[in-house]
Amino acid sequence: MNRISDILQKEKCTSLILFTGKSSYHSSGADQVIPKMLSDLNIRYEHYSVSGEPSPDFVDKTAAAAGALSPQYILSVGGGSVIDAGKAVSAMLKADKPVKTYLEGVGTESPPGEKVPFIAVPTTSGTGSEATKNAVLSEVGKNGFKKSLRHDNYVPDYAVIDPELMLTCPVKITAPSGLDAITQLVEAYVSTKANPVTDAYVEAGLKSAGRWFDDACREGAESIEAREGMAFAAFCSGVALANAGLGVVHGIAGLVGGLYPASHGVLCGTVMGPATKLIVKKLRELGKPGLRGLKKYGQAGVFITGEDRGSDSENADNFAEKIQLWIHEFSLPGLGSFGIDAESCKYLASKAGLKNTPVELSPDEIAEILEASL
Amino acid sequence: MNRISDILQKEKCTSLILFTGKSSYHSSGADQVIPKMLSDLNIRYEHYSVSGEPSPDFVDKTAAAAGALSPQYILSVGGGSVIDAGKAVSAMLKADKPVKTYLEGVGTESPPGEKVPFIAVPTTSGTGSEATKNAVLSEVGKNGFKKSLRHDNYVPDYAVIDPELMLTCPVKITAPSGLDAITQLVEAYVSTKANPVTDAYVEAGLKSAGRWFDDACREGAESIEAREGMAFAAFCSGVALANAGLGVVHGIAGLVGGLYPASHGVLCGTVMGPATKLIVKKLRELGKPGLRGLKKYGQAGVFITGEDRGSDSENADNFAEKIQLWIHEFSLPGLGSFGIDAESCKYLASKAGLKNTPVELSPDEIAEILEASL
Repeated sequence: MNRISDILQKEKCTSLILFTGKSSYHSSGADQVIPKMLSDLNIRYEHYSVSGEPSPDFVDKTAAAAGALSPQYILSVGGGSVIDAGKAVSAMLKADKPVKTYLEGVGTESPPGEKVPFIAVPTTSGTGSEATKNAVLSEVGKNGFKKSLRHDNYVPDYAVIDPELMLTCPVKITAPSGLDAITQLVEAYVSTKANPVTDAYVEAGLKSAGRWFDDACREGAESIEAREGMAFAAFCSGVALANAGLGVVHGIAGLVGGLYPASHGVLCGTVMGPATKLIVKKLRELGKPGLRGLKKYGQAGVFITGEDRGSDSENADNFAEKIQLWIHEFSLPGLGSFGIDAESCKYLASKAGLKNTPVELSPDEIAEILEASL
Repeated sequence: MNRISDILQKEKCTSLILFTGKSSYHSSGADQVIPKMLSDLNIRYEHYSVSGEPSPDFVDKTAAAAGALSPQYILSVGGGSVIDAGKAVSAMLKADKPVKTYLEGVGTESPPGEKVPFIAVPTTSGTGSEATKNAVLSEVGKNGFKKSLRHDNYVPDYAVIDPELMLTCPVKITAPSGLDAITQLVEAYVSTKANPVTDAYVEAGLKSAGRWFDDACREGAESIEAREGMAFAAFCSGVALANAGLGVVHGIAGLVGGLYPASHGVLCGTVMGPATKLIVKKLRELGKPGLRGLKKYGQAGVFITGEDRGSDSENADNFAEKIQLWIHEFSLPGLGSFGIDAESCKYLASKAGLKNTPVELSPDEIAEILEASL
């Protein structure tokens, strides 16, 4: 927490907009401690609470209201939604049009790239948004969507990653967040856009997640090392995805998250096991062209389970099985619990994007993943 | 090479200063190919050749002369000296005083941090200067020094890392450059300032160096994979050292390089074996407080040799032995060949800095390293 104060003093900040979360867990009381700190530093601020994933409407209204303060900084202390809200508002304070104009797949213009400087302080270990250049905004409903506002300049100016802020995060958030981070790591690893630098981040992140995920879910508040290990894994996943992109699990989660009221971490965790099983099977069937991807899933298996079964293929299966075990152990709800049935799976499969998945998947195969995730 | 042209066109560059090397190997004819490319792009340019490590005098004179062109970019295509020359000139084009004013340990002022945008294109795999925020300048002689001009803003705006440009680099440059990169990786790894992100870069870099160093030295022009592997290792070493700092080998190499006409890569390679042996011995003697460092030297041993001898201590010794073997195999000259004798070792030991070495070393112990490197 002291680091936030150090940064604000160093930057001679006199005014800012603060975003925190509204979830029932207030990690280390950030929503009370931070306002007090700002008052002590004589910083004028406005405080907004973010409830759930931010909508374009929330971003536009907040940017319009917050502009009156002419804030020098935006400070987000919270989970991925809180960070994405701050990131989007920091950009929209310097843009002329509604944020939908600039949203990928929704609007028609590129974002201008200017912004008010932005400080991200994650209190969950999941999205890695503190290291990415995009903010995910969603409008949930029949014509809903979940799309990114993206520009290289939107990477936060500062990210303060303090595991103490994560100690009180309950397992029902820790588990899906951690599985989101692991999904991002693996999808960036096997991505068609992966490179040696993103691989370095992924390998470090997977090793750390393999070592600490169980402890963070089980010991939680007792283990600062476990929180630090998962915070590092999430940060690595953010750097990796910002540069190598993602795959079909995020293609599905993005689509479903716009249409049904399901949290992103839960969706990623739930879909990941069946998706990995099918992709690994297809990589194996491909023969030589699938070896690179199979090797990476195998490596992921070794890093995540700490066990080497002797071949890439067996290690890759071991990875998929471990993910399935975790989904059951930490009771991630299936897609069925959000009202999705076999019929909707077919529709969703026809709309979901593959992103940078290393194998081709037909709509029928995507439907197979969805049905296995019900 | 096409990437350089892409960048210059994207940035609408119409004028630049080009730095290339003067060494007998002209990597892929960069000093002829690049000028032709610039002419084809209708870019006005001035071309400077850099001979050996750049001196403050060279930087000041070149900046004064080059200022007349008002270049939009500085482009360095060459080894560490060429990149550092360009990096320093790009900074001094926006500074009022001679560069010595801003040199660490020489001048008294902090560098202003403004610069002309800078593109670094390495043709050797060693310093990693394409990823660092410092330029090393030296004045060789009795009162000589080798010191850094350093500012966060001096990280190159673009680094184009193309292994094709390294194919013709002879073994007498490839071997010491590679050993410099390995030294930087290991010194950053065991540094008291290391963190999980720098560790991720180091581990990826060491794995790559362990896999490709021999091939790059032996097959050279035949193996683009080996060149790519070593280029990646050098890049990782640059990122790691820029953030975690270095240790006693660089403390010695910096001092000796200012006083004797020895290349930086040769000095690092030569001193590294004896230094590692002594540091590992001291870490072992320390007991528990030495375990973290010993573990890291052990890991380095596994990455570099590809062999796990079962304990950190044995793997660490294996690492030190492998370095010694390489020094002999690739005939790196000892310090004696530059006119250093046992008497000068004592003097040098009293002046060399430890930087972020993880153990205390007395002047006598530094002298021991130097004597073992004669």
